[in-house]
Amino acid sequence: MSENRAVAYKGAGHVEVVDTPYPEFELKDGPGVNPANVGRKVPHGAILRTVATNICGSDQHMVRGRTTAPEGLILGHEITGEVVEVGPDVEFIKKGDIVSVPFNIACGRCRNCKDGKTGICLNVNPDRPGSAYGYVDMGGWVGGQAEYVLTPYADWNLLTFPDRDQALEKILDLTMLSDIFPTGFHGAYSAGVKPGSTVYIAGAGPVGLAAAVGAQLLGAGVVIVGDLNSDRLEQARSFGCETVDVSQGDPRDQIEQLLGVPEVECGVDAVGFEARGHGSDAGHEAPATVLNSLMDLTEAGGALGIPGLYVTGDPGGVDAAAQEGSLSIRLGLGWAKSLSFTTGQCPVMKYHRQLMQAILHDKVQIAKAVKATPIPLDEAPQAYADFDKGAARKYVLNPNGYIK
Amino acid sequence: MSENRAVAYKGAGHVEVVDTPYPEFELKDGPGVNPANVGRKVPHGAILRTVATNICGSDQHMVRGRTTAPEGLILGHEITGEVVEVGPDVEFIKKGDIVSVPFNIACGRCRNCKDGKTGICLNVNPDRPGSAYGYVDMGGWVGGQAEYVLTPYADWNLLTFPDRDQALEKILDLTMLSDIFPTGFHGAYSAGVKPGSTVYIAGAGPVGLAAAVGAQLLGAGVVIVGDLNSDRLEQARSFGCETVDVSQGDPRDQIEQLLGVPEVECGVDAVGFEARGHGSDAGHEAPATVLNSLMDLTEAGGALGIPGLYVTGDPGGVDAAAQEGSLSIRLGLGWAKSLSFTTGQCPVMKYHRQLMQAILHDKVQIAKAVKATPIPLDEAPQAYADFDKGAARKYVLNPNGYIK
Amino acid sequence: MSENRAVAYKGAGHVEVVDTPYPEFELKDGPGVNPANVGRKVPHGAILRTVATNICGSDQHMVRGRTTAPEGLILGHEITGEVVEVGPDVEFIKKGDIVSVPFNIACGRCRNCKDGKTGICLNVNPDRPGSAYGYVDMGGWVGGQAEYVLTPYADWNLLTFPDRDQALEKILDLTMLSDIFPTGFHGAYSAGVKPGSTVYIAGAGPVGLAAAVGAQLLGAGVVIVGDLNSDRLEQARSFGCETVDVSQGDPRDQIEQLLGVPEVECGVDAVGFEARGHGSDAGHEAPATVLNSLMDLTEAGGALGIPGLYVTGDPGGVDAAAQEGSLSIRLGLGWAKSLSFTTGQCPVMKYHRQLMQAILHDKVQIAKAVKATPIPLDEAPQAYADFDKGAARKYVLNPNGYIK
Amino acid sequence: MSENRAVAYKGAGHVEVVDTPYPEFELKDGPGVNPANVGRKVPHGAILRTVATNICGSDQHMVRGRTTAPEGLILGHEITGEVVEVGPDVEFIKKGDIVSVPFNIACGRCRNCKDGKTGICLNVNPDRPGSAYGYVDMGGWVGGQAEYVLTPYADWNLLTFPDRDQALEKILDLTMLSDIFPTGFHGAYSAGVKPGSTVYIAGAGPVGLAAAVGAQLLGAGVVIVGDLNSDRLEQARSFGCETVDVSQGDPRDQIEQLLGVPEVECGVDAVGFEARGHGSDAGHEAPATVLNSLMDLTEAGGALGIPGLYVTGDPGGVDAAAQEGSLSIRLGLGWAKSLSFTTGQCPVMKYHRQLMQAILHDKVQIAKAVKATPIPLDEAPQAYADFDKGAARKYVLNPNGYIK
Repeated sequence: MSENRAVAYKGAGHVEVVDTPYPEFELKDGPGVNPANVGRKVPHGAILRTVATNICGSDQHMVRGRTTAPEGLILGHEITGEVVEVGPDVEFIKKGDIVSVPFNIACGRCRNCKDGKTGICLNVNPDRPGSAYGYVDMGGWVGGQAEYVLTPYADWNLLTFPDRDQALEKILDLTMLSDIFPTGFHGAYSAGVKPGSTVYIAGAGPVGLAAAVGAQLLGAGVVIVGDLNSDRLEQARSFGCETVDVSQGDPRDQIEQLLGVPEVECGVDAVGFEARGHGSDAGHEAPATVLNSLMDLTEAGGALGIPGLYVTGDPGGVDAAAQEGSLSIRLGLGWAKSLSFTTGQCPVMKYHRQLMQAILHDKVQIAKAVKATPIPLDEAPQAYADFDKGAARKYVLNPNGYIK
Repeated sequence: MSENRAVAYKGAGHVEVVDTPYPEFELKDGPGVNPANVGRKVPHGAILRTVATNICGSDQHMVRGRTTAPEGLILGHEITGEVVEVGPDVEFIKKGDIVSVPFNIACGRCRNCKDGKTGICLNVNPDRPGSAYGYVDMGGWVGGQAEYVLTPYADWNLLTFPDRDQALEKILDLTMLSDIFPTGFHGAYSAGVKPGSTVYIAGAGPVGLAAAVGAQLLGAGVVIVGDLNSDRLEQARSFGCETVDVSQGDPRDQIEQLLGVPEVECGVDAVGFEARGHGSDAGHEAPATVLNSLMDLTEAGGALGIPGLYVTGDPGGVDAAAQEGSLSIRLGLGWAKSLSFTTGQCPVMKYHRQLMQAILHDKVQIAKAVKATPIPLDEAPQAYADFDKGAARKYVLNPNGYIK
Repeated sequence: MSENRAVAYKGAGHVEVVDTPYPEFELKDGPGVNPANVGRKVPHGAILRTVATNICGSDQHMVRGRTTAPEGLILGHEITGEVVEVGPDVEFIKKGDIVSVPFNIACGRCRNCKDGKTGICLNVNPDRPGSAYGYVDMGGWVGGQAEYVLTPYADWNLLTFPDRDQALEKILDLTMLSDIFPTGFHGAYSAGVKPGSTVYIAGAGPVGLAAAVGAQLLGAGVVIVGDLNSDRLEQARSFGCETVDVSQGDPRDQIEQLLGVPEVECGVDAVGFEARGHGSDAGHEAPATVLNSLMDLTEAGGALGIPGLYVTGDPGGVDAAAQEGSLSIRLGLGWAKSLSFTTGQCPVMKYHRQLMQAILHDKVQIAKAVKATPIPLDEAPQAYADFDKGAARKYVLNPNGYIK
Repeated sequence: MSENRAVAYKGAGHVEVVDTPYPEFELKDGPGVNPANVGRKVPHGAILRTVATNICGSDQHMVRGRTTAPEGLILGHEITGEVVEVGPDVEFIKKGDIVSVPFNIACGRCRNCKDGKTGICLNVNPDRPGSAYGYVDMGGWVGGQAEYVLTPYADWNLLTFPDRDQALEKILDLTMLSDIFPTGFHGAYSAGVKPGSTVYIAGAGPVGLAAAVGAQLLGAGVVIVGDLNSDRLEQARSFGCETVDVSQGDPRDQIEQLLGVPEVECGVDAVGFEARGHGSDAGHEAPATVLNSLMDLTEAGGALGIPGLYVTGDPGGVDAAAQEGSLSIRLGLGWAKSLSFTTGQCPVMKYHRQLMQAILHDKVQIAKAVKATPIPLDEAPQAYADFDKGAARKYVLNPNGYIK
C-alpha cells in the first residue's frame, strides 16, 4: 500500500492518479521543481491530510497542454485539510486543526506579504514573485490533489476553522475558500461592486459564478453573467443572476434589454486568455474578446476586475502575439471612458477569513451556486475530462473520505 | 381653504398641524429663519407636492424641548415629493419628477460639496457648515412635514426616481432614502462593516434598524442590535438580527453568549446624546453610556460609526458639561484598542442613489424592517406622541394621498 | 477693431490667430460644435478676460492632423482668467475674480459630477461622457486661446484665487492648474506614489515634468524621467529628477544603474498614443511601446497611472488596429505582475484646490519645472511649431497683457 | 565585566544604568514580565548589538511614576541594532544586518498582523492586544536601552537597511524609524494631510516635530506647531514650521493671524494624556485640553490624528475620571463638525520602509528636525532628567560606540 496518492499531469489531455511519497518537511526534487528550491527545508510547514481538494479551471490550462508543465507534475492548489504534523518552527497551528490553504504560497516575511500582497510573495518562487501549489513555473511546490500535502509557512498561510464539526458539515462551502470564492470575490471587489451596483461577469465557470456570489454578497442590485454554455448559464440563474448568452449576439443589446441601458457599472473578466469569440465568432479562440467586450459594456468611470488568468507565454496561442501574452486591446476606448483595471492572482488571505465568517453564519451558499460535486480521488481523470467539456459543476475530490 | 398645511412645533411636548403659505422661490422670514437668510432668492429651487414625509427621532429632540427651537417652527426633513414647479435656473429636474430630497441641504458649489461632504455645505447656513429642513439652528429652511415644500439647489440635491409608477409602488421603502436609510447605512459603512463582519448596533429605533439593514446589505455575518425597548428588539429580530436587551445587564456578556467572544468587529451608535444607562441604571439619562459601551464592546482595531446625534448645546442636559455637549469619554480605553471614530451628519448624497438601486432591484426591504406606517398629516401630533413613547414604528405622513 | 481674437486650427500643421465674436451666454453654431449643443443657453456661465492660456501637447494631436478636428476650430483648454461678466444664475463667482478653469467642462449636477468624476460629466457633451474647451468631439465648447472665453457652470467649475495681487504675481505657476499640473499629479497619484517611492515617468514633455513635480510633492524618494529628447531630459534634471535616455537602449538597464534594481514601484505614462520606439527603434511611432515598457519596468504589485492620451480613432495611426485605438499590449506580463492601471482624463477639480495651496505656500515651483514661457497671442503659431519640434518649454499665451 | 548593561526604572523620578544578563532565546522572568510569558521560547528571535536606542516621551510617563511600572524594569523601545545571533527559525535576517526594530512587537501570524495592524498583535501580550519593548503592561519584553537586546519574530519585525556603511552614516536619521518618525507620520497621515493642506500639530516634543516633518513630506502647505516651550517652538521654526505659543492665549486667534482663517484642515495630537492647559491655565494639567482644542481648531469635515498616548489607568491623574482614562470631551462640537478620529499605537511596519527610503534618498532630515543628540549609555539618567525638563532634543543612546 502506498504512502500517498495524487493526481499527476501526464501529458496533453491526460491526468492520472499515481503513487507518491508521503511529504517531508523539505521540498524534494521532482517534476517542475525549480532547481533553486530543491532541498529547501520547510521547518515552518504543516503536513495535511486532505479533507477536500478541488479541480480548478486554471489546472485545465496545463492539462490541455497550453503550458510548459512537465509530465509528472502533481496537480492541485485548492486544498482544505486536517493538520497531521507540524514542523518545529510552527507555533500556532496545531495537530487536528481543520484548515483552509490559500492557493498562493506566501512566506509572511517579505515586504509584499507585509503589505498583504500574498499573491506576489518574493521568497517562495525563485523565478518571479508569486507561487502556488501544483502549478507550472511557480517554484515546484507539490500539488494537493492528493491524500497528503505539505504546506509551508503554516502559521502565516493557514486559516483554521473555529469548530471541527461545523467545518466538516459545511465542507463543500468551505473548500471554496482556498481559491475560487476569494478569487471571484476579488473580481467583484476590484470591479468596485457596491450596494445597488449593476454588474456584468464574463464567464459562468466556477470563478464567474463565485464572482456572482461575491457581487451579491457586496449588495449588488443586478448581477448579469455571460457565457456560451447554456448549462452554466442555467446554473447562474439558479441563484438569482440574470444571464446573457454571448453566442446569441452582442451582449450590449442583451444588457440593454435587461437594464434599459446597454452598460453596467462594474465588469469582471472571469475567463482569461482562452477566451472565445462572441456572436457569429462564438467558439473560435479570440483572446482579447472578453476584455474588449468588457470595455464596451462598462460605463465611463467604471472598473474592471480581471481575475481571469492571462499568461506571459502560451505556446498554443492563436498567433505569435498571443503566444507571448500580447493581446490587441482597445485601450483607446478604455481611456476615453476613464476605466481602471485590476489584474493578477487574488491574494486569498485578504478575503478568506471574512468569507469564512459569511459561510459559517449562513450568509452565502457558494457550494450550491457552483454545484459543488464531491467525487473520489480516483475519479479525478474523468472529472477533468467532464469539466473540460463544460460540465456546469465544481468537482471536489474527497481523497480521505471526510466528505460524507 | 388653505394654500398649504404643515406640522409646527408649538412648545415643549406640543406639535400642531397649521395653515401655512404656499412656498415661493424665496426664503421668507419666519420662526427659526436666520436673519442672514431672510429674503434669500431661490431661483435654483423646486417646489414639491409632498408624496411622503417621515417623523424622525431627531425631530423629537426639538419636540421634547431639548433645544432652542422657536415656537412655530415647521418641522420635517425627510421628504419625498412630486415636482410641481421649478425655478428659472433649474435645468435637469423636471415638473412631474418624483424625487427624494436629502435632509442635508447643500449648494453643490462650495468646496465641501465638491468633495462630497454635503452634510457640511458652506453656503446654506449662515451659522455654521451644514443645514437641514425644518431644524433649529440650521439656517431656517422651512420643514417638509407639509403639503408643499421648497427645495433649494434642486439640480444638485434631488434624486429622481427612474419610473413614476414603480416609485409610487415602492414609496414606503423609497421614502427612507431622504434620511434614515443612508444615515443608518453610513453608520454601518463608517464602522467598517464588510462581508462576514460581526456588528453591534446600539439603539433599535428607526436609525438603528436602518443601520442593521445597511450592515446586512454590506454582507455582515451577524448583526446584533441592543436597546431597552422590547418591542423595538422584536422588530429587529423580525428581519434576522440578534438582539441584546441592555436593561438585562452588561451587553458584553450577552454578546459573548451569541458569538462566543465578548466583542464585535464593528460598532454603531444609533442613539446619540439622549442615551440612557444600561443594566441597573437603565432609564436614567447617561449621555456617554453608549459610546463608552461601544468602546468596550468593539475589538481592538475596530471602528465606531456614530450617526446618533450629539449636540453643542443641550439646555436639558443632565449636568453643566452635558449642557454644552461635553461627555466623559473613556478615551484611554479607545486609544489602547486603536479604535477610530466617525461622527457627524450622514452626507446622504454619497449613498442615496446606490441604496435606491438596491430597493428598486428588491435587494432590501427597509420599510418592513422599520415598520413604515403611513398616516394622514392630521395624525402627526398623535404619531409624535406615540413615537416618543417608544412605538416600534416609523411614521410616514401622507399629506396628499399619494400613498394608497 | 475686433471684439475678440483667438487661435484657430486651420488644417494639418497650420494654426492662425483669427478675429472671433465676443462670447455670449449661449453656445452658438461654429466649427466643431455638436448640433445638439447649438443654441444651448448658458445662464450659469461666466465670461472671462483671459489672463493666461497655455498650449498643450494634446492640442498638437489636432494640429498634426491626427484627428477629425474641423478647420476653424478655436483651440485652447488651459485657461486662467478674470471674470468680466456672469450669467443670471451665477451666485458665488463674482466679477473681478481671478479664476482657474479646469479643462474638463462639467455640469455639477449629474451623478458623475456628484461622485467627483468631472472628467466624464454626462451633461455637457452629447456624444459621450466628458468634455473640454476647444477640442474635437468634445461638444463644441469654444477654446480659450483667446482674449475672451465663455465658461459654463461657473459656480461649479471655477476655482477662485484668494488674492488678486498674489495670483498675478504667481500666474506662471497658477496657470498650470487648469490642466498639466493636476494631470501630471493624477498620473503620480494613481501610480500610487507615496513618501519614499521610486517612480519612472515615461515622457519629459510638460505633463511628464508635471508628473515628476507631483511625485516629488507626494514625497517620492527617486523620480526618474525617460525621453528621447535631450533638452527635455536636461529640464527634468534641473529640478532634481534622474533621467533615462530611451534612445540609448533599454530603460531597464539604465534604471538598474540608478537604483541597483531594474524596476520601480510606480510607473506613469505621460506620452500616450503617439509613442515612439526605444533604443534602435527610437523615432518610429510604436503606440504600445510606452505601456509595454512600463509593465516591464514596474515591479510586481505596482500601479500604472496613465494620463497620456489614448484615443478611440486615430486616422493617422500606424496600422488598422492603431487607427481604431487598439494596441498590442503585453497583458500577460501585466497580469503575472498583478499590476493595476488607471486611465482617462484627470478630473482636475479633484486636485486643483490643494495644488493651488501648495503653490501659494511656495511648496512647488511648477512654472520653473516646465519652463513656462509667456508669449503674446500673436506668437501662438510659432510656439505651436516650436513645441512640435520638441522645445523643452511650456508656452503660455498672454493675450491681454496681465503677465508682466 | 558585565555581559550586558541597560537603563532600568528604579522608582518615580529615578533611572539607573545596571548590569543585566546577555539575552537568550527565551523570555525569562523579571520585573514586569507577564507570568504567562515567563519561559516563552523565542527561536524566531534575533539578538542585536544595539547601534542606537532613543529615549522617548512615553518612557517619561513611567519614569514620572504615572504608571504601575515595577522597579527594575529595563526601559527602551526605540532600537536600531546589528544582528549578532539569530534563532534557529530565522530564515531571512542574517548576522551582520543593521536593522531597525519597530517598537510594536508583533508575531506576524495573527489576524491583526495579517491585516497590517501590528500595533495590536494578538499573540505577544497576554493582557491585551499590542505590545512594546521595555514598557509596563506590555507583556514584559525586555527593553532595548542596553548593549544587547532580544527581538522576537525577527523575520517579520525587523527592517534591514540595504547598505551597512550608508546606514551607519545616516544612523541619527534612521534611528528615528523605530518609533517617532513613523508615529509622527501616522499622526499626519491619519489627520488626512495631503499636498497643500493646512495642519496644526499640538505638541513640539519629538513626536510633534516628527509629525511636522511627516506633514511636510506629505506635501502640506503650512505646518503649524503649538506648545508652551519656547525652545521647542524654536526648534519647529528651524525647519520651516509656523508656531503657536499656547501660553500666549487661544491658539485659534494665533492661527487666524497666520492663515487668515482660525481653523486648519488637519489636526494632530502629539501630546496625549499629560496635556496642560492653554492661556492662563498654562502649566496646569488638563487632560482633555488638547483634544478639545483640536476640535475647535480643525475645520468641519477634518480629521484628527491622535498619536499622543492616552491610557486606561493613570494613578496620578487629576481626578477620579482621569485616573481611569476618562476625559471630558466636547463630542457635541466634534459631531457638529463631522470630525473623525484615529487613535492608538502607530503600526510602525505600515510606514517604516517607505520612510527609510525617504531618508536614504535625502528627502527628509528627521535627525536635524528633532535635534538628535547622541550620548553614551551612562548619560541616560541625566538625559532623562533634561528631557523631562523640556530640553528641545531627542536623546540617542550610543551603547556600543557605533555612532561617531
